[in-house]
Amino acid sequence: MNRLFALGLSLFISTMSWADVKVVYHLSEGIPQASRAIGNIRNHLNADPTAKIVVVTHGQGIDFLLDGATNQANQPFAGSIGELAGRGVQFRVCNNTLVTRNVSKDRVVMEASVVPSGVAEVARLQAKEGYVYLRP
Amino acid sequence: MNRLFALGLSLFISTMSWADVKVVYHLSEGIPQASRAIGNIRNHLNADPTAKIVVVTHGQGIDFLLDGATNQANQPFAGSIGELAGRGVQFRVCNNTLVTRNVSKDRVVMEASVVPSGVAEVARLQAKEGYVYLRP
Amino acid sequence: MNRLFALGLSLFISTMSWADVKVVYHLSEGIPQASRAIGNIRNHLNADPTAKIVVVTHGQGIDFLLDGATNQANQPFAGSIGELAGRGVQFRVCNNTLVTRNVSKDRVVMEASVVPSGVAEVARLQAKEGYVYLRP
Repeated sequence: MNRLFALGLSLFISTMSWADVKVVYHLSEGIPQASRAIGNIRNHLNADPTAKIVVVTHGQGIDFLLDGATNQANQPFAGSIGELAGRGVQFRVCNNTLVTRNVSKDRVVMEASVVPSGVAEVARLQAKEGYVYLRP
Repeated sequence: MNRLFALGLSLFISTMSWADVKVVYHLSEGIPQASRAIGNIRNHLNADPTAKIVVVTHGQGIDFLLDGATNQANQPFAGSIGELAGRGVQFRVCNNTLVTRNVSKDRVVMEASVVPSGVAEVARLQAKEGYVYLRP
Repeated sequence: MNRLFALGLSLFISTMSWADVKVVYHLSEGIPQASRAIGNIRNHLNADPTAKIVVVTHGQGIDFLLDGATNQANQPFAGSIGELAGRGVQFRVCNNTLVTRNVSKDRVVMEASVVPSGVAEVARLQAKEGYVYLRP
């Protein structure tokens, strides 16, 4: 029985190490951080194409996910967001931030979804869904 | 037996997913980060009232936990600290920082406790007590 | 059987809590962050001498690992890097960054190794090797 238990446990652990890597990118700083994050995520997916990436934003971190947002070089974020969404990246925007900053949900790009709380989402993904953390 | 093992394992995993979320907020930057963190934690607890939150501070991160500390708008932190402590949030201050910066333990607010090393505490909470990480 | 399962499981969990703490320090900001990190890691190892620490760098984070790098006070990093490497700390540099910034691998100090992607390495260490995260 102990042998079978050990077998089962090692199978369980092996399964974990076969599983795809799941990563939450945590963004709260604003446009420069978002620009860095987009380059980071592109490199991340090139190095590990099966990585599952969720970008959770709150505070100034949501700015690049509003319609018409542009980076420091005045180039629109829309293309990069669409490209990454096409590679499976998910984007989430904090509703507390929308309310506090008086930003309408209508301004959030269609590739992003709204969650009640950005920080609670960052914690939940790690604690309940096996995501690891990365702050770009 | 394998069926029982599977049952036990799924019970174990279910237990994990029932468990409360535990989060370490890592602060080392100073007053603006502390102000953000307080808003973040308030939102976090509103969205997830059972979340267990520990704030670990070192470097400039300890400043808001010293007696009489005020934020950028010159308002005392004392009220917010007391409010969050009342909701179960714990605050920890790095002793290495106190020694290096020559700050007396007497200046640390009563809601906070002193730990030998802030960074070791941030790692220990994750590795040994199941906390997830968040840097506000 | 359930009793044996419980025994096995608690042994497994105990083993985890006996295991050494493994920490990835994530650096991407530049010289001031690297200086802080070196102090943090020294304090970390003093508080927890068995902690296994890997420093993963990308972007501006690689700068202190290039030959001849100096800190804000114009002191070379070489001594600190050698000291920490001697205490078991590993240093890793992102190859994407080397390529993007057109920095030759020859300029990376001998204590550091090059990995294909810094961000993928930060995620992999957490997801596959049981490391916890810390951003100094």
